[in-house]
Amino acid sequence: MALVVQKFGGTSMGSIERIKNAAARTVAAHLEGHRVVVIVSAMAGETNRLLRLAREVTAVPDAREMDALAATGEQVSSALMAIAIHAQGHRARSFLGHQMKVLTDSAFTKARIKAIDASKVQEALAAGEIVVVAGFQGVDEQGNITTLGRGGSDTSAVAVAAALGADVCEIFTDVDGVYTTDPNVCPTARKIDKISYEEMLELASLGAKVLQIRSVEMAMKYGVPVHVRSSFSSAPGTLVTHEGDLEQVVVTGVAYDKSEARVMLVGVRDQPGVVATIFSALAEHNVSVDMIIQNVSVDARDPGAPVPHTDVTFTVAKSDLTRVRSVIDEIGRDVGAADVRFDEDIAKVSIVGLGMRSHAGVAAKMFRILAEHGINIQAISTSEIKVSCLVATKYTELAVRALHEAFLDGGSS
Amino acid sequence: MALVVQKFGGTSMGSIERIKNAAARTVAAHLEGHRVVVIVSAMAGETNRLLRLAREVTAVPDAREMDALAATGEQVSSALMAIAIHAQGHRARSFLGHQMKVLTDSAFTKARIKAIDASKVQEALAAGEIVVVAGFQGVDEQGNITTLGRGGSDTSAVAVAAALGADVCEIFTDVDGVYTTDPNVCPTARKIDKISYEEMLELASLGAKVLQIRSVEMAMKYGVPVHVRSSFSSAPGTLVTHEGDLEQVVVTGVAYDKSEARVMLVGVRDQPGVVATIFSALAEHNVSVDMIIQNVSVDARDPGAPVPHTDVTFTVAKSDLTRVRSVIDEIGRDVGAADVRFDEDIAKVSIVGLGMRSHAGVAAKMFRILAEHGINIQAISTSEIKVSCLVATKYTELAVRALHEAFLDGGSS
Repeated sequence: MALVVQKFGGTSMGSIERIKNAAARTVAAHLEGHRVVVIVSAMAGETNRLLRLAREVTAVPDAREMDALAATGEQVSSALMAIAIHAQGHRARSFLGHQMKVLTDSAFTKARIKAIDASKVQEALAAGEIVVVAGFQGVDEQGNITTLGRGGSDTSAVAVAAALGADVCEIFTDVDGVYTTDPNVCPTARKIDKISYEEMLELASLGAKVLQIRSVEMAMKYGVPVHVRSSFSSAPGTLVTHEGDLEQVVVTGVAYDKSEARVMLVGVRDQPGVVATIFSALAEHNVSVDMIIQNVSVDARDPGAPVPHTDVTFTVAKSDLTRVRSVIDEIGRDVGAADVRFDEDIAKVSIVGLGMRSHAGVAAKMFRILAEHGINIQAISTSEIKVSCLVATKYTELAVRALHEAFLDGGSS
Repeated sequence: MALVVQKFGGTSMGSIERIKNAAARTVAAHLEGHRVVVIVSAMAGETNRLLRLAREVTAVPDAREMDALAATGEQVSSALMAIAIHAQGHRARSFLGHQMKVLTDSAFTKARIKAIDASKVQEALAAGEIVVVAGFQGVDEQGNITTLGRGGSDTSAVAVAAALGADVCEIFTDVDGVYTTDPNVCPTARKIDKISYEEMLELASLGAKVLQIRSVEMAMKYGVPVHVRSSFSSAPGTLVTHEGDLEQVVVTGVAYDKSEARVMLVGVRDQPGVVATIFSALAEHNVSVDMIIQNVSVDARDPGAPVPHTDVTFTVAKSDLTRVRSVIDEIGRDVGAADVRFDEDIAKVSIVGLGMRSHAGVAAKMFRILAEHGINIQAISTSEIKVSCLVATKYTELAVRALHEAFLDGGSS
């Protein structure tokens, strides 16, 4: 007898018929003898409907009230789920953020979980009930309703699983697992049976569609095994767990991301504090920076200049580019940049795998394969288990297929 | 500077435009220097939408979960109302049943308020905020969400007004007050400026459309002045208050009710306990009985019988008639009824007024007027401030107009 946490997303809760199906899966686990806790998202479309109502009132609605409003979406689904389980002949009880309770900070619309008191849930489970928890929501110290931000129900599910010491956290979704790369780009992409938390985090651009990144970080921190699987099939999906469980492949997946833009500051003074100035200013304006590449200090333009200069390149979300331009306008002169270049026509292609740690030459092989296909690499960034290359957008799909063929087709490389 | 409680019903919250209008009225009271607490109902149609969702899952949804579901309607409106007040440049804060808190018993879908802790509301008011309270909902001792039953937002409003010691509880609705009778039946019906709690209760069939009866009982108990007025006009409506404030008219209003049926048990044994048996059985089956008329024991059918017999007549809601028939089938023989007659073709016409207490002959005048119009009285029931007559349904409108003309047209009678 295990303790199983199941999470059903908006699509799996998208209609009364689907809620009944989700309830049937939960009841099946209960009948297998497991103690079951279900976390539910709002019915597909409901959160957007609520946000639209608020925006009809005013363009910038009060954040505290937005959370009180948005939290009703999951309250409705959790009640309907409990009703559906009752209707199938089993006892169920819904818990809202304040009933359970899920204590968060007071950062409305993007709150972080501070603690979970699972004692009432434990009591309900001990009494033989199926527990239904409204995802996405919590309460702060003052009893205000908070929400965890988009996709927060995954985070709720993992946090509840961690608090209960659950044996597994099953994330039911509309795809059947995490793939080695995007099947729409590469027909030989295959479902990954097991993947480590670290790899899952690096595969964010693949995984984010099925699993919220914050939830993976939390699962890793608390060692919660996460099983990503389909709501519409009983086949096993992808198990996200510690590396120890994994077969030793060098590369686990190929990811790509077209959402970033490249910013290059040319001829910045190479003095202590200058780079810090740039990125502090970006942080102050809430711009998240992804890759940062600084070349060794060279000053080819003017070898005799008294102060050496360097080029600083970084990538940001395309949606942040307007803010980046205004920050650079503000601080550009301070750091003495000769020129600023923006490039939106770039994509980031990455290979990810724990096996890289112990296998030399993986990065070199990646660069060689891209070169063989005539793809110019504009920038490189590496971590212990990842190599990312910036390439022109038009090469994205070609690069993904070439790397998948070289590293993943026909088993381990 | 007064403490004003305002309540906006579903129609007044029926669209974003109307919510903005309601917010403007609240802000106006705030700008006049009053401390303002607003209680809101769900947007018109929303509660029915939620109940429909539950009924799509199952015909008999779990009551606890129904309340968690239904309470979201008022949560949405309270958040939108607070957002609208913010958008008009004033600070507002929404409170849900569990935040305030409104403590109820655990009778899901029809909970009764046991206590209200208004300390957080007092703090918010002291800080210059406008307080928005989600009506209709509370929490029980265990933290389960409860609802007060249909129309419960009026009760929430009066209860909050009582807990705060408010100067007035304004009920904003889609009519401009309580009328001497139904204007659709009697063109000379006029708005009542002031009415006592007792009269308002007796005028239930007129008042229930604008004011939930439980809320009047609570207002009377705690001495909360209730002002029933239009959301769409600034004209004063009807003030419901203690009798001391009232001008001395004999009859305040004429009410009618076509929703009841008459049940007559003929030839019941006139022994101690028999009548108790009948009405205990009805109560056990949750049948509410309105009028009860028992004639003096006569036994015209068999003067020599050893046990005297009597006839018992009572009225029940037509919607309860099926249950009444099954109860009577069960206990009919026990009480020795010779015959049971059901009549759905009846209406109850009533005159109500505190002035009756000190004016003799009011009932006689009512009977005489009905007789003058050829209306046969089938049964009579009186209280200190009310006389009700059962008549054939077809005479309802004629009786109402005749009584209104005699008692109310042209000022006091």
